[in-house]
This record gives sequence, C-alpha cells and structure tokens, in this order.
Amino acid sequence: MPQASLEELAADLRAGTVRAAEIVGEAVARYEATEDRHHAYKTWAGPRAIVQAEAVDALLKTGIDLGPLMGLPVSVKDLYGVPGLPVYAGTDADFGEGWQRRGPVVDRILSQTGIVTGKTHTVEFAFGGLGTNPHWGTPVNPWSSRGAERAPGGSSSGAGVSLATGSALAALGTDTAGSVRIPASFNGQTALKITHGRWSLDGIVPLSPSLDTPGILARTAADLAFLFAAIDDCAPVAARDMSGLRIGVIENVVWESVEPRIADNTQAALSQLEAAGARLQPIHLPNANRVLDLFRRGGLAAPELRGFLDANYPERIERLDPAVMARVVDADQISASDYIQRRALLAASGRSAARVFEDIDLLVSPTVAISAPLLADLRDPDAYRSANMLALRNTAIVNLLGWCATTVPTGLDANGIPSGLQIIAPPHQEERLLAATLGIEAVLGAGPVLLGPPPI
Amino acid sequence: MPQASLEELAADLRAGTVRAAEIVGEAVARYEATEDRHHAYKTWAGPRAIVQAEAVDALLKTGIDLGPLMGLPVSVKDLYGVPGLPVYAGTDADFGEGWQRRGPVVDRILSQTGIVTGKTHTVEFAFGGLGTNPHWGTPVNPWSSRGAERAPGGSSSGAGVSLATGSALAALGTDTAGSVRIPASFNGQTALKITHGRWSLDGIVPLSPSLDTPGILARTAADLAFLFAAIDDCAPVAARDMSGLRIGVIENVVWESVEPRIADNTQAALSQLEAAGARLQPIHLPNANRVLDLFRRGGLAAPELRGFLDANYPERIERLDPAVMARVVDADQISASDYIQRRALLAASGRSAARVFEDIDLLVSPTVAISAPLLADLRDPDAYRSANMLALRNTAIVNLLGWCATTVPTGLDANGIPSGLQIIAPPHQEERLLAATLGIEAVLGAGPVLLGPPPI
Repeated sequence: MPQASLEELAADLRAGTVRAAEIVGEAVARYEATEDRHHAYKTWAGPRAIVQAEAVDALLKTGIDLGPLMGLPVSVKDLYGVPGLPVYAGTDADFGEGWQRRGPVVDRILSQTGIVTGKTHTVEFAFGGLGTNPHWGTPVNPWSSRGAERAPGGSSSGAGVSLATGSALAALGTDTAGSVRIPASFNGQTALKITHGRWSLDGIVPLSPSLDTPGILARTAADLAFLFAAIDDCAPVAARDMSGLRIGVIENVVWESVEPRIADNTQAALSQLEAAGARLQPIHLPNANRVLDLFRRGGLAAPELRGFLDANYPERIERLDPAVMARVVDADQISASDYIQRRALLAASGRSAARVFEDIDLLVSPTVAISAPLLADLRDPDAYRSANMLALRNTAIVNLLGWCATTVPTGLDANGIPSGLQIIAPPHQEERLLAATLGIEAVLGAGPVLLGPPPI
Repeated sequence: MPQASLEELAADLRAGTVRAAEIVGEAVARYEATEDRHHAYKTWAGPRAIVQAEAVDALLKTGIDLGPLMGLPVSVKDLYGVPGLPVYAGTDADFGEGWQRRGPVVDRILSQTGIVTGKTHTVEFAFGGLGTNPHWGTPVNPWSSRGAERAPGGSSSGAGVSLATGSALAALGTDTAGSVRIPASFNGQTALKITHGRWSLDGIVPLSPSLDTPGILARTAADLAFLFAAIDDCAPVAARDMSGLRIGVIENVVWESVEPRIADNTQAALSQLEAAGARLQPIHLPNANRVLDLFRRGGLAAPELRGFLDANYPERIERLDPAVMARVVDADQISASDYIQRRALLAASGRSAARVFEDIDLLVSPTVAISAPLLADLRDPDAYRSANMLALRNTAIVNLLGWCATTVPTGLDANGIPSGLQIIAPPHQEERLLAATLGIEAVLGAGPVLLGPPPI
C-alpha cells in the first residue's frame, strides 16, 4: 500500500516522478493479492482502470490538468451509477442501464479523471451497519484473523476494505445512519458524513432520501480533507490547533454498553486532546432516547425503502436478505400519519438539539460502541439485530439530528480491531469539522502511524 | 370603498393629504355596514386598528417611514399568528397563546406598521375550496343576492369578502390547492399563490406543509404587485407589454365541466390578449390526470393534517366539520409507503411537467370551472364533495406541480358571479408572473373597471 498521501501523489503525478499507471497498477496488484480473501468488490474494473491511467499519463505529460483527483484510484460503493458498470445495490439482480447514469458526485470524480477501480460491496440497499450480505458474501475485516473472520462494518462494507487492502486510495460510500463511519472505524480509517442536502443524491440508489447522504472514506484525515475539497470544490482545509478548542463530550446514551477497551481508547484520546490544549466539557444530548426509539422502530428508512420498492420493484421484496426484509415487511404497519409524525419529531428534535453547540465547537463520542462482531455470530437473526442496532446507535444520532461528523482511529480494541472517535459538528460546518479532525489526528496519530498496517 | 390604489394611498399618507386614521376609519365603517350580512371576520380588531392608525399618523407627521404597508389596513386569515388575537384556524376552539406568535410573513406586515383589521374566516384547517364553515358560519359572497347566498370561495373565505366589503385593502391568505385564487376569482379580485418554500410557513397553522404556501389577495393586480414587493422585499414590478408574450393555453383537463359562460369569458379574455400582441399556443399538460387522481384520494393534505392532529390534537378529530372529518378519517387507510409514493410521484411529475415551459412564458386556464355554488346546495355531503373537487381542480394542479400563479377577473358568469383567468409561471418566477399579470390586467381591465363594484 502506498504510504504517500493523496496530495503528495497528486504533486508527484504532476512532477512526473510517478505515473498514474504505476499507482493504479499497484492498486490492481493489491486487489489481486487480497480479493479472494477480503472480498471488497461486487464489480472489479481493473483492466479499464489501467487503460484510463495510461490515458491520464499521456494527458499529464502534455500539460493537461483535469483536477486534484486526476489519476488517483477511487473505489465506488455499488449504490452509485458509474457508466459502464452494473448497479446491484447489494441486491440479487442488476438494476439495469438507467441506474448506471452518473450523478453529480460521481461526475466530480470522472470529470477530473479520477480512476474508478470498481463497485464495492454494500449491505443490500445499504440497510445495515455491520456489512453483511448473503447474496454476494460479506467482505472480511482485514484486522480479523483467519478462522475468526469479523464484520467489515457497513453498509459501505467494501469501501473500507478496499482502502485497507490498498486496491483504492479513496472510497465513495453513503451514510444514512453510520454507513461510512462504521466501516472506517472498524478498518482504522477516517470518514466524513456530510450534512444532508449538501451533495446531490441524484444517481444513487436510495435507502431513505430524507436521511441519505453521499459520504467519503480515506486512509487519513489529510486524505479525507483532500478528497472532500476535490468533490465539494471548496478551498483546501488546514488543520486547526487544539488550543482553546471546546469539545463537548456526549455523556448520555453513547456510553451505554460500550466495550471497556473501546471506552479506554476513547478516554485516552480525549486526555491527549486535553493535554494538547482542548477544553473538554460534558454535554447531555436532549431527545437522544426519543429519536433512537424512533430509529429502532424502523425510523424513516424502513417506510421509505418500502415505498421505493412498492412503487418500483415490488417483486424484489420477497427476495431480500432476510435481515433487510424483516424491516421492510414490518414497515407495513407504519401509517402515513405515523411516518409524518416521525418526520416532525426528528425536525423538532434537530432544532432543539442545535442548542448544545451554543458553548462548544464540536461534540465527540466513541464512533461504535462494540467491536466488529464475528461473522459466524451474526447468522443468528436475534444476535444480528441487537449487534446491528448497537453498532449503529452512536452514529445514527448524528443523522437523526441533522449534523455532520467524521471518525478517526483511537487504537485497537480487545479483539485487535480498530476503534474510533466520532467528531460531530453542526449542519454545513464540514470545513470547520475537517480542520478540527486534521488537528485531532495530528495529536492522536493517523491510522498507519497509530495502529500499524492491517495484518493483511 | 376607497378606489385609490395602495401605492397612491402610501404616497398620500406621506404627502399628508390623507391620514391613516381616515383610511382605517373608512375600513371600520365598511365593516360595520357589512359584517352582519357578509361575515368576513372571526375576530375583529377594529378598535385596536384605530389606535394603531393614529399612532402611525403621529409617526408619519414626524418624518418616520416604516415601509410601504405603513398605515394600510390588512386582513389576516385566521391561520396566522398575530400577537394579541386568538387563533382558531376555522376550528371550534382557540389554539392558545403559543400560536399567536408572529411568523416572518406577519412580521413583514407588523414591522412596517401595516394595520391588521382582524382575523378572517377560513375553512377549518383550510381544507376546502368553497369557503364553508359550520362552526362559525360561512361568509357570504358579496356578488350573490339575498335569499340566494352563494359561496365566497375558500379556504381563505373571509379574505376575499374583506376586500369586497372594503373592511381591508389587502388580505393575507394561504394556498395549498387554490385557497387564495378561488376566493379572489369568486369575488372579482386578484391573488398570488407563490412558489412553495419562497416564504416561511412558520407561525401558520399547517394543513399540508409539503404544499402549503402563504398567499395574498388584492383588489387589483397593481395592489397585488405592491403587496408582494412589500412582503417579499423585492424591487417594484412593472407591467410587461403583451407584445410577443408566449401564452400556453392548457388544453386538457382544465376545460372539462367548465360552465359555458365561464368558458366564454375566458376565451374572450384570451382573444383580447391576442389582439394586444400575445401569442397563444395550446399546451397539453402531461401527468395532469395522474396528479389529480392522487389529489382526489386525499393527496398529501389528508395524511399530513391527520399526522398533525394525531400528534398534537387527537381529541379534536371527532369535533371536526363533517366535510373535513371525512377526509381526515379516510387518511387512516393511507400507509407510509403509499404516502411516500405520492410524494415521489408529485416530485417526478413536477420535474417532467417543467418541460411545458420550454417554448412559452406562461400557462393559462380558467381559474375555477364553476360558479360559486348556492350555500343551500352545499348542505348535501355528496353535492359538497363534487363541487369542492371541481372548484379546486384547476388551481390544485399548480400546487401539485410546484408552480406559482395569479388570477385576474374575466367577467361575470351566468349567476352574476365573477370568473377568473389563472396565470401560471414556473417555480420562483413571481416577479415575471406579476409583470405579466399587470400587463394582462391592463388589457382586460381591473376588477372594478371590468365588473363594477360588488352589489353590496
């Protein structure tokens, strides 16, 4: 896996000291060495990626610069349309050519000649936080050992694994309740869940349009900020010094049932931040239990996915992954009035929760309360259900209350799986969030520095 | 009724040739002379209006100018919060002080010291197009004769009547499916339904937040444009010449069951516009029947009102006007999935219908297909239901497809009730819509010029 940052690689490409074909060639080699076991991709586009990389090299050599992502290998979650590559969205059947049309986010990659390595696995319709998929097999967490395979985190399950194996250097995911942050946390990486509405959902198979967000995963906060600026077309973000940073530590809900080593890693990280000049302050999140209770009853996702399927693919419902189907079938019991009240409750909760940011800059919590479960343990539906809800809890709050958030690694848990610190900011403060995330990573250490490479 | 325009009155107030106390005094006198029979107000605020008018005169005399609406009498539909005046929203009970808080639209009136004359009657929760209200009595159409009282149009039923009687010179209404355009049409006035989302709904009792819009009614297009600019804080709008104006005449759906004299009035108006230089072109509205079918099955309003009542006022459901209750109770049968599919269908229909504006500037139709029904005929629930749906049909299309629209008078129908021409523009083109409406009114004649005064 190349240890150079995306920014360094972009500079090297332009200086002629590295070729896109070399970078992409290395990604292809990493894919070939790891895919059989780690299983990140539904559709691999390596051969086409190499052709594109060579074309990019020819363009670069003649002085053409199409943007920061030019020549860099990016994996794309298989919910996004990418011309020429089938869309399954984790289901058992191709969605057809109409869904291959690129939306604005993929267009930002392609128009800069970012190189799409392939379509990564996802939980069916992105409706789950652990990363399982019985149709196509579940990607294997690269930090877990042979014979004790653990969940990769989801729903962007292949996205995190593609970064861990080195088959891509940046990854597009989506996040409705934690789907970029959970895999990033379980893989020792960073991820950004943007504010709902900031980037278009056009060209992405929906789970819950009221809460769906395109999202990104990267190996380090520096790469994450680079990728964000390249897609968002904003100015580069610089690290914020910890001095005087007011960090609110969520004190309720997010600590319940947290595994001891994960709690220890989080507390140790917070102590380091405090030592570096940050001011910590306990914060009680109002309404957290109310919105989480709504989430556990199917939230908005179950009825919204049900509506999408009823309108467009009713015949697919009986073919769903049983873990997904259960929630889609239960959505039958949700009336329009109940759904409308759920929306109103979330809107009102978001408005009143906004007050917690009056005296602080950021909120933090453990990203995920539990370690990546053993895949074997998830075959039992009850075990799956309770692990899934617990894995999603701390991240889902952010989606339900309308905020944006990142995750950075804090250490390894009792199973040798990375744990993460979730960093939360008010709506549309992605630049300030990333600036703080860069500063926090500078204190804690980036994934490879802090954790070493995954034992692949 | 003062025949001077709002703009002239505003100038006269500043020149000192008329006093606000005189203008408001005249409105109070008109109220006292007409209210017993015409019944425009749920809550009359005349005494307080006179005190305010005298204060405004004192301010004007000392050179204070608080904005274009300063000293002008405005009636407010009883869905809006106005401090100190109770909110009933057409129901049988006061909503309490919390709902009296002013939202941004009322704030635009009050902060300019526009004078609120009172709270005008509305259909209960604005859920009906004819203007009926069994709790408080239905306002009487000022163009109908004694013993043959006709509907005022709704849901902003008191708004149009308050302008016709002269108890107000401008009126705030709301429009979810035609609720400012229908009363304006039935009263020989103008009205503007803005694009959903342009003005805040904060401080207004909701019917259907997905489609609700604050709206305005005025005696003439000139007053309408003046009132719009005062609330919207945009530059004044000037009349557009008819020369080269491309008017699309909707050819499907809107002409079904139109009463012959209303059709004749519409055609005569279109001929006058053509003679003045406009180019007419027949336009077929795609998806019109699909969205109207959805509308007839309760649309978004029935489930959204049901959700609001279930969450906040479940005990009020059994006390609703039977005509309103029927639709609220039927909303029980609408599942979350169905509701979500309705929203998706409307969004998709709006996107595809946007294409009709590619080669035209405006669309037109008869505002309402039928004459204002006799109040006596509306006591039969079946008669009410069919008249209500037919009255709402041509205006509801505009809300369902996401457009903005005005109405101007075209003449009197077979019952001596005014008929109207609906003028429709794409989303967020209110200024262009008003410019064309001013030009069209200049050709057709304003209400009083074209129709004479109502026979009050």
